[in-house]
This record gives sequence, structure tokens and C-alpha cells, in this order.
Amino acid sequence: MPGNSIGHTLVLTTFGESHGPAVGGILDGFPSLIDIDLDFIQSELNRRRAGQTFFSSARKEDDLFEILSGVFEGKSTGAPIAFLVRNTDAKPEHYLQLKDAYRPSHADFTWEKKFGFRDYRGGGRASARETLARVIGGALAKLYLRKQGISVTGYVSQIGSCSLDENFILKDTAAILSSPVGCPDPETEAKMIGLLEAVKADGDTLGGAISCRINGVPAGLGEPVFDKLSADLAKAMLSIPSVKGFEYGSGFSAAGMKGSEHNDLYITRNRAITTETNRSGGIQGGISNGNEIFFRVAFKPVASLMKDQETVNREGEKVVIKGKGRYDVCVVPRAIVIVEAMAALVITDHHIMQRQPEG
Amino acid sequence: MPGNSIGHTLVLTTFGESHGPAVGGILDGFPSLIDIDLDFIQSELNRRRAGQTFFSSARKEDDLFEILSGVFEGKSTGAPIAFLVRNTDAKPEHYLQLKDAYRPSHADFTWEKKFGFRDYRGGGRASARETLARVIGGALAKLYLRKQGISVTGYVSQIGSCSLDENFILKDTAAILSSPVGCPDPETEAKMIGLLEAVKADGDTLGGAISCRINGVPAGLGEPVFDKLSADLAKAMLSIPSVKGFEYGSGFSAAGMKGSEHNDLYITRNRAITTETNRSGGIQGGISNGNEIFFRVAFKPVASLMKDQETVNREGEKVVIKGKGRYDVCVVPRAIVIVEAMAALVITDHHIMQRQPEG
Amino acid sequence: MPGNSIGHTLVLTTFGESHGPAVGGILDGFPSLIDIDLDFIQSELNRRRAGQTFFSSARKEDDLFEILSGVFEGKSTGAPIAFLVRNTDAKPEHYLQLKDAYRPSHADFTWEKKFGFRDYRGGGRASARETLARVIGGALAKLYLRKQGISVTGYVSQIGSCSLDENFILKDTAAILSSPVGCPDPETEAKMIGLLEAVKADGDTLGGAISCRINGVPAGLGEPVFDKLSADLAKAMLSIPSVKGFEYGSGFSAAGMKGSEHNDLYITRNRAITTETNRSGGIQGGISNGNEIFFRVAFKPVASLMKDQETVNREGEKVVIKGKGRYDVCVVPRAIVIVEAMAALVITDHHIMQRQPEG
Amino acid sequence: MPGNSIGHTLVLTTFGESHGPAVGGILDGFPSLIDIDLDFIQSELNRRRAGQTFFSSARKEDDLFEILSGVFEGKSTGAPIAFLVRNTDAKPEHYLQLKDAYRPSHADFTWEKKFGFRDYRGGGRASARETLARVIGGALAKLYLRKQGISVTGYVSQIGSCSLDENFILKDTAAILSSPVGCPDPETEAKMIGLLEAVKADGDTLGGAISCRINGVPAGLGEPVFDKLSADLAKAMLSIPSVKGFEYGSGFSAAGMKGSEHNDLYITRNRAITTETNRSGGIQGGISNGNEIFFRVAFKPVASLMKDQETVNREGEKVVIKGKGRYDVCVVPRAIVIVEAMAALVITDHHIMQRQPEG
Repeated sequence: MPGNSIGHTLVLTTFGESHGPAVGGILDGFPSLIDIDLDFIQSELNRRRAGQTFFSSARKEDDLFEILSGVFEGKSTGAPIAFLVRNTDAKPEHYLQLKDAYRPSHADFTWEKKFGFRDYRGGGRASARETLARVIGGALAKLYLRKQGISVTGYVSQIGSCSLDENFILKDTAAILSSPVGCPDPETEAKMIGLLEAVKADGDTLGGAISCRINGVPAGLGEPVFDKLSADLAKAMLSIPSVKGFEYGSGFSAAGMKGSEHNDLYITRNRAITTETNRSGGIQGGISNGNEIFFRVAFKPVASLMKDQETVNREGEKVVIKGKGRYDVCVVPRAIVIVEAMAALVITDHHIMQRQPEG
Repeated sequence: MPGNSIGHTLVLTTFGESHGPAVGGILDGFPSLIDIDLDFIQSELNRRRAGQTFFSSARKEDDLFEILSGVFEGKSTGAPIAFLVRNTDAKPEHYLQLKDAYRPSHADFTWEKKFGFRDYRGGGRASARETLARVIGGALAKLYLRKQGISVTGYVSQIGSCSLDENFILKDTAAILSSPVGCPDPETEAKMIGLLEAVKADGDTLGGAISCRINGVPAGLGEPVFDKLSADLAKAMLSIPSVKGFEYGSGFSAAGMKGSEHNDLYITRNRAITTETNRSGGIQGGISNGNEIFFRVAFKPVASLMKDQETVNREGEKVVIKGKGRYDVCVVPRAIVIVEAMAALVITDHHIMQRQPEG
Repeated sequence: MPGNSIGHTLVLTTFGESHGPAVGGILDGFPSLIDIDLDFIQSELNRRRAGQTFFSSARKEDDLFEILSGVFEGKSTGAPIAFLVRNTDAKPEHYLQLKDAYRPSHADFTWEKKFGFRDYRGGGRASARETLARVIGGALAKLYLRKQGISVTGYVSQIGSCSLDENFILKDTAAILSSPVGCPDPETEAKMIGLLEAVKADGDTLGGAISCRINGVPAGLGEPVFDKLSADLAKAMLSIPSVKGFEYGSGFSAAGMKGSEHNDLYITRNRAITTETNRSGGIQGGISNGNEIFFRVAFKPVASLMKDQETVNREGEKVVIKGKGRYDVCVVPRAIVIVEAMAALVITDHHIMQRQPEG
Repeated sequence: MPGNSIGHTLVLTTFGESHGPAVGGILDGFPSLIDIDLDFIQSELNRRRAGQTFFSSARKEDDLFEILSGVFEGKSTGAPIAFLVRNTDAKPEHYLQLKDAYRPSHADFTWEKKFGFRDYRGGGRASARETLARVIGGALAKLYLRKQGISVTGYVSQIGSCSLDENFILKDTAAILSSPVGCPDPETEAKMIGLLEAVKADGDTLGGAISCRINGVPAGLGEPVFDKLSADLAKAMLSIPSVKGFEYGSGFSAAGMKGSEHNDLYITRNRAITTETNRSGGIQGGISNGNEIFFRVAFKPVASLMKDQETVNREGEKVVIKGKGRYDVCVVPRAIVIVEAMAALVITDHHIMQRQPEG
């Protein structure tokens, strides 16, 4: 398979460029007889839409989606579900200065080396606008998971130098949706907003991190030895533009621990076998154990600045990229729904794959 | 594809249980006419062998491999290369206490939930002994990469509380191979050994981290948008037993940075276009840019302790797992060659996939 | 991968139902820098369009396609090429009688058993309207093959009891396009038309066969041992609606032959090694040998008749399906371009996969 | 995936050359808790063994297999099942004359063009000895299918000019196993044996055909639109060495029929919906309908003759291949178990994939 598909049994294939006619995708392998809630899908798209806060791009598009197949009388039919979002606010003339110049820390140079050619309008295929299709695919996956009692909740745990306390416990998921930065702790949220204002004033941008928690996953999901649930989550997250790292459960902190500190001891609680602690992040040996799955994803700062940047053009000559266009100060709040979408796709894929053992 | 295969064009499928007749694999898609250096493959296997230091398991096996197909007159033929290593020091009686009990932070419980049944001898299929097949596959990949001028070098950058300095620059790769802990800095190495001795005396174990650097990769490897080189590396690393996190280039530290600090500016050096810094870790937009690729992988501490541990059995009754058997204090030094093998497989896979653009 | 994709390196995924909003697809893995001739693609679509002869369905649609991605400044970019054709003459009310009844030799019953549910409007996803997307994908593949000097030519070799002479040699490919039945031999063509008229008058339908010849394929395409070029062609052909059989080269007649009659002896012609005869159909051991590839595909007669047919409904009660709607007397002439499209996709896929041996 | 694997959810990967150390494979995705009957597997291998009749190759090998993984306490564990058969009667010196010469209608030439190199000993990887691994994989699949009440029965319906009557009805499956030519009709069997004797005396070989019937398959197997059950069967059959054609149900005869003659009318029988006739061969729209699945496969005559044959060598010079070695007069009887094995793998794969519709 070429690179524009992800999944084993449930496969999302996406298409579309930032300034082409449309972005969209096909979700194949989606089970039949699932109620397709169009309003929910639109509400998920709205969560990633630009132009809603002072720190997000001013690109204004309604991002209205259309489903082209696979749904009949409000239900999935088992046929592939194709969908698209038309690009309506594409302003390719903004990007003419990028025709020959390579923007720092963008994919312009590498894409051109790979294909000998690139659609230079706004990043073309490498634009994060492609993630619209992921959000729609993920929303469909969430409709499946909801029926299984599984929920996926992401939130911003870091923006630049501001982080949630390490021992923060998520209680109020509504606070995530109402927070402009997607951070459920009001105190940290306030600091993040202050930091964003300062950085914006300076024409600069910020990185950050998203935490994600998945509840209700039964034990047994994940395929040894390569398609571990953790390995598929890692790949899905690293496939999101700007992501630089992934850790689950104890993550990188495990490297500094002793076995006696780290092990999750098995106990019996309410007549069910579970573990006392959850440093495993709900996954052992690559297979879910029935506990909450949690992981964290690091995003680099947005590479497009409001400041001028030096770079070179195709001939290797120095040129200056002017700081203009419609850029985000920080994409992490808009990326929550993308992280959730990719997680929902992975969990659904593995849920469909898992068969009850015979006998 | 079920879960025991990895790769797109170059596919490694592995088989085998810790205490079954053999472990091995099939490497399919390997190009023809590559010289197969059997001594090199054996030397790679020796790097992961147990029983060589005070802190590794006393399981003593020569781990001699046999190639069953795909090689003729010393060269690869293009046919699948099958190989195996017989299990000779399997002592399944050591594991009878584990028949019904779930070892803390092992895959016993999840495997049983998934398949309704498990080979309880030494972890069965979930044992890290499976990685022997990865090392052989990786050694074959390295033979291909060597011909392309590409090298893959891993080293231990952290064991428990001891870490290499953040600004450590790798100069002496020979020091890695001669170090019992696989750490190229003598000072840090000494501290790591001291720590391991103390922890061993206590019957405990330690986690750690491995850094990996890949040189000579041409620009253009990686398939947008899901099979990014970074995404495939992440999956390959997270598929290794005990791995809890992956980051490349600036990694998690990028979350705390500003765009103006993080961006790699393009420059011309020796008439070639490159970047001034390499926070991108050699990958931009999921495609290699010709710079050194580097990433870091976190390992949790070994879950099997020399101490007794409380757990439950299949019926949910409390039982105690006795601390015995042949365990490692820290597997990270032995895992260097596994990290390299998985990286070599990913790079080779993408190298074979990449076509020169037409026209 | 779920079932709506085909190909290894070049993957076509299709979507769409007969009476849904649109049919279309995504072609992923298509090389960059290929000139995309939109008129050619439309002309290929026109070859499969209904309503052009007395023996084809009266469904009148322009079948205008739109490309949504992957093409920039007239050239392929290497990104996935998405395309769609809107359904404009969908008359779902024609199909209300089929809501509960199973049409004989259609997929109504099996689709419902599989998915517990079906889009009953005109066959839904099982409708041959899906093949529009194959024709577009195939037209793109032909643009690639043309650049490699490879041509794919199908023609009707049988309709009902009328067949081309076994020793017929194709000389005039223009005659295929100008023949309403796609048969290059004027005498056979006339008999076929006469037969179609008689059968139409009777409200009945006819089966037939298509022969296909591929010229210019270099030696070396095909992946042993399962993805043989012949095996992939067989699968591609049997995936076309109504196809019941596939044979290549000597085909079924080989079963009746002796080795000494059947073997193709190697000779040297124009300083190149080739074979004296071509009973192998251009493929030996699943790999192309540089000769013309040829194969034959059998189609069953159209299952929808102008006559009433007895059947049962979901409750197993006898019902009568009225003979009406917009049906074809024989689809084989319209299917030529579909056979060619699938063949072009398979050859392109294998052409992209094949690497020049090293060394 | 490179070409040595087949299947979606149940994947068989094979390895091995005719005169290398061993042939074997890995079956991945096989469900846990299936009883593994080793004697049955060996009895299946024995059905394909040479040296049992006057018309089969004199190569004498016991073909004893070894299972290396995936089975514990007599049951499948869900881990990949690896197996091998050592090559014990390999006589590579017999094949030295083939080092530079291309045997007519063998894969020598194409394999060399593909890989720039070939293992010339007895066909190397292109040898039908590879099918040993298919038989073992197929035997495992049959153990799964047996539990589901599904049986797969192949028999020889044609050898050269001798064919079973078109209206032959299979009643006595035991007669297949007891017939040296695998033909259940005593009269046809006698003619086939006479024909084989005459052709052997002449140093020549014969083609033939195998019919296969699968009973007990529930409705709903097969994945639209490309992974149709019929398409996957076609690919599996065409992947068998020497196969030239595949047809199912009415097959090529459907091309000569009218719709009113061909349609299978739905009826109610024993309160279940079924069809009056079965020209569909148990598959409609690519999905099983609960009826018997049947198909037919054509084999070309063995290309290696006892007679001398003219050919060319790598330099294009005329050379003569001497008629010697250990060849079959007709492989079709030995191929029955291979056809069954491939069919069993395809049906098992689709059986595992099929999910009961929700709701």
C-alpha cells in the first residue's frame, strides 16, 4: 500500500491538497448498521476549524462536509464511506513567493526531492488541511466506539513552557471543550493564554503537548508482535503533522525507574482482575488489559512565523520568506480532535479485528 | 495482515516461542545480488546474547542461526530468506509456577484474554527471545544499507538515573561496542555500571533509553501522509518489547520551544542545500532531508525481579511469584542491536520503495 | 485491507452506489510528473457509457468526471488522485419493488446476508456503475503505460453462440472502436448484431467473452510465488461484475495438450532471446517474458430480463419481479474498457514494483 | 507485501527452493484453540508426494514436516505457525546442464530477467516443490473448516483428451482418494491410465483439469468489490504452478447462454431461501450464497520431457536440453491436494474476516 492509507481492517485513505478543489477520504471496512449522526461529525470538524481564537489562523472556511457513499437511510451499509470538504477560502496567490523557496522546517524541500515536483500552494498535500479527512474518519469511528461504550478524550497538557502538573487528574471533560486552549485546569489555562498573547505579539509560535485517555476498552485488543496496540497508536500519532514524540503510560519517565517502582501488581477488585496502579497505560505486551489507555504526544512549534526568515531557493541562493499569510500561533488546541480521531481509528480497527477466542 | 509481519516492500515475518523448538522468520522483498556475510549476521546476534555481563540473564545459548532459503552461491536471490535459531537452553520447568499466575507488568494476562489460552513457558510468544529474528532480519538489512553507504548506530544514553549529557556528541562509535553497557562516554558508563551493581544486589531492575543515529540516508525517503519515515520508525520501535516512548529530532523538548528557536534554516554548504541546525532529526514532513536521522527510545525496567512479588491467579486468588529464573537487571545494553535492526529494516524498506521521479 | 482496494504499489480504492450521490475512487501510488490528459480519460468513460446502442441500457448520463486532487499544472504530483462522477439520472423509485425481493442471479440476497442490510436502489454498491471508477483509474494507468510504450487492447470475441474463429489474428485495432459490439471481424460482428436483435425482441439477454492483448511489456514483471502476473490478472478480471472465468495463453485448451505440442521453444530473433510460439501467453512462472500477453474473460448473461421472473422475498414468499427498468441486452461490448482498465492497473502496478536487479 | 504471502486475515508466507536446505512457511492469523492433528497434516502431504505411481516423478522423499511454533499442548495458540520440510533427495548435479540454458516453458528465463540471477538447481524457487508449504498451510485451514462443518473436495476431471462427462455428479468422494489418477469415475479413470501409459512410452507429458467442490460454506463470505470470494479463489488457483485457467459455476459456458437459461431462481426449501439451480457456483456478486461452491482449474502439460528439446543459452546460442532427471508425465493427480489447500486457505481467510452484522 502506498502511504495515504492507515489501518488493517478499518482503513482510512485520504486525499487532497490545501489549495486544490477538495480534501476528503474513504473509510473502508466500517461495519454496517451503525447510525450515522451527521451533526456529530460536523461538530467534530468545527473543533479543528481555524479562525475561532486569537491564536489560530484567520483562514475562514465553514468546512462543510458531504458524504458520498456508504450510508443509506441514516445507517452505514458496510460499503466504503467516501466524504469530502470543498476548499473555499483557498488563496493560492498568497503562496507565490514559495514557488521556488523552501520554508524552514516545512516539507517543501523534502517533498520536491521525493517527487521531483510539488504543489507549492500552501504546502499542497503536506498541509495540515489534510487532517480534515482524519477528523471525519475519526468521528465515524467514535460513532462505532460509542456503541461499544468506549470514549476517547484528549486535552492540552502543555503549551511552550506551561504544563499541567504531573499529578493532574482529569475529572471535568466538559472543561476541555469550553477552554479556548483545550486545557481542563483553569489556572494552567490562564497561564497558557497569557503566554500565547506574548508570543503572538512577538510574531513567534509555540509547541505543546496533548494527553489522551481512552476508557472502556476491553482487554484483548492489539496484535502481537508488530501490530501492538501501542505501536499502532505511535504510528498514528507520528503521522500527524508536527508531531515529534509519543509516550504511553509511564513513558519516558520509565527509563529512570526501578522494576519494583514500576510494576503494576495484579489485584482483584469487584470480582474482576485488574492492577493496583496503571503505569502500563492500559497496554501490556502490546495488548489492552482493560484499564484506561493513556498516552502523550509532543508537537513542535508552528514553522510559519510572522517574522521574516532567511532560507534558500531551488538554486541554493539566499532568499527571505516574508512573514505573512494566515498562520497559527499554536496549533495544539486545534489538534486535540485530530489526536482523538487517530486514536479512535486505531481502537476501532483493533476492536473489529479482535475475535472472541473459540472453544 | 495479522500482526507478525512488518514492512511494506521489505517484509519481516517472525515466529517462535521462548521455549518452543525454534525462533526465526522470513524476510521477503530483499533485493537480489546482495552479498550475504554470515559472520556479520552471527556477530550481530552475539551482541544481543545473554550471559555476557553480570547484569544480563544467565540463559546460555549460542544462538546459532541457519539460513533455509533465498541465498545461493553467497548472494541473495530475490526469493524470501528464511532463517531460524533453535532453542537449546529452554528450561520450561522453571516456569510451571506461572501456569496460572499473572506476572506483574508481563503479557500473561493480556495474552490469555486475547487468545483464551497461552503458552506459559517463559512468556511464550511474548518473550523477548522473539527479537532474535529481528536481529537477523536487521543484519540482512544492514548488508543492503552498507552497499548504499548508510550506517545505523545505536547507543545507551540512559540507565535509570544516569544519563548522557544532553549536549553529548557521538564521535567514537567503537567505544559503544567495547562498553559492556553500550555507552560511548566512559564517565557515564562507569556510573551506569555502579548503579547496576547496586540495583542487582537489591534484586531489582532498571529502565533506560537508547539513542540511534542514521547517516547517509538520501533525501526523499518516507511516504506521505501516513507512512511517514518518522511514523514507521515510531511503530517499529514501539513494537519492541518494553518500549514506552519514541521521539525524534528535538522530540518532547520541542513542546517547550518557540518557532524561532526551533526552525532549521536552509543554507547552502559545499554547493548542496542543507540546514544550519538539525532539530528536525533529518526528517521533515515525514520525508528524509539528507541530514543525520536521530531518535531516542525509552525502555521500562525489566518486570521480572529477583524479589518475590504479589499477584493473582486465573481465579483471582492472591499468589506470590517467587523471584528466581534467569533474568536481566537491565536489558537496554542488549537492546541496542534490536533498535538498530528495526531502524535498518525501516530504512531499507523505504529505500527500496523510493523511486527516482520520472522526467 | 477491506475489499474495496486493489493493487500492491498502485492501489485503486473505489466507492459509490448506483443511486447514491456519486461514484468515484482514489488512485494512490501513481508516479509524479505524468501528463494527465483529461480528454483521454473522458473518452475512456464514454466507451462504457450506456444509451449508445439498441442493446445497451437507456440510462442516460453524461458521466462527467471531476479530479479532486493529485494533479497540479497538468501533471500528477505523486499525491493520491481522487475523482468522482455524480449520479444524475438515478431513478430509485424504479427499484421499490426490489426492496424486499431478491432478483435472480443478482447480489441482493448475498449482500443482505453479509451486511444485514442493503441499499436496494439498483443494486446499490453491487451495481456495475461502480466500474466507472475502475475506468478512470485504468485511464490514468494507461497514461503511465503509454510513456513506457505499453498498450492494452481488448475486444469482444464471443457473444452468445457467435464467436471469433479460434485462429483469428487481430490486425486492425481501429475496427474495435468503430464496431458497436467491439468485434474487429466484420463478418462475426454482423452475426452478433443479428443475434442481439433477436434476443432483445424476446426480452432476453446474452453472455459473451472478451479477449485482451497487451504489447510492449518488458520481461521481468510479476512477483513470485503468489503475486504472479497471471494470478493478479485473474483476480482483477474475476473482480469485474458478471465475470465467470479467466484463461491466459493456451488456457483451458492446455488441459487437452501434450508437452511436446504445448512447449514454447526458445530461439534467437534479431539478436534477442524469444520464443517460437506463445502458448505461454507472455507469462512464464508468473513473470512476463517480453512477448505479447493475452488472456480471455467470460461474462455471464445479464441477470435482469425484460421478462417477468419468479423469486422470493425476505420472508421466503413467492413474488414476481416485473421485467422493466433500464437494462442491457448484453454488457460485453461496454465491458471492453473495464477489462482493459483492470489490465492496465495490474500491469502498471507490477511495472512500478519491478526494480532493476543490482550489480 | 512482496509476493510470497497470500491472504488478508489468514496469511500464508512460503519459502524454500527445490534444492536448498528446506521448504516451509508461516501461517499467521490462525485462530487459537484449534486441535492440531499432525497425522492429518502428514496424510495431506503424502497425497502430493512423488514416486507413488508410474506417471509421477521418481524423486523419493518422505516429506516429513516439523512444526516450529504456534502449537502448544496440541492446540493452536494464535501465534504464527511455522513449519518446514527438509530437502533430502536433492540432486543438484542433475541440473548442471541447466545452469546457462533456458528450459522451454519453464521460469528459468523470466526469473533470470527479473532478478539478474537464479538458483538453477531444479527450478530453484520456481519449482513446484514450494507447494509443499501450501499443502501444510491448507491442511491447517482444513482443521479449522472441519470445525465449521465445511469440506473441500477436489478431483481430476480431465487428463489430456479424456474428460469426465459434463453431467457427471460426484457421489463417492472415497473413490477419489483410492484412484491413482484422482478420478472418481472408474470408466474415465481407466481411459486416463491408458492414455498416460501411451504418452509415457513416448517420453511426452499431459495437461489436465481439476474440479473442486466446497460444501457447508455459510452465506456472506466474500468482500466486495475487489476481494470477491470468486476473485480470491481465481488468484489462489492461478498462483499454482502450471495453472492456465479458472472458471466457477457455469464458467466459460455462461458466455454462450441466455439470461433466461442461466439465472438461478430463488425458492424456499425446508423453510430456507435457496436457489433452484446453481449456475452461480455458490457465489453471487462475489459473496457466497450458502450453496455448494464449485470451480474448475486447467493445468498445462509438464514442460520437462523425457525427449531432447532445442533451446538457447544465456548467450542466445542453440543448445539441446537432454531428456532426463525425475519428471512427472502428468502432475494433475498430485495437484488435487494443492488445489484443495489453496481453496481451504481462501475460505478460511474469508470465514475469519466475516463478522456477524450488528443490531
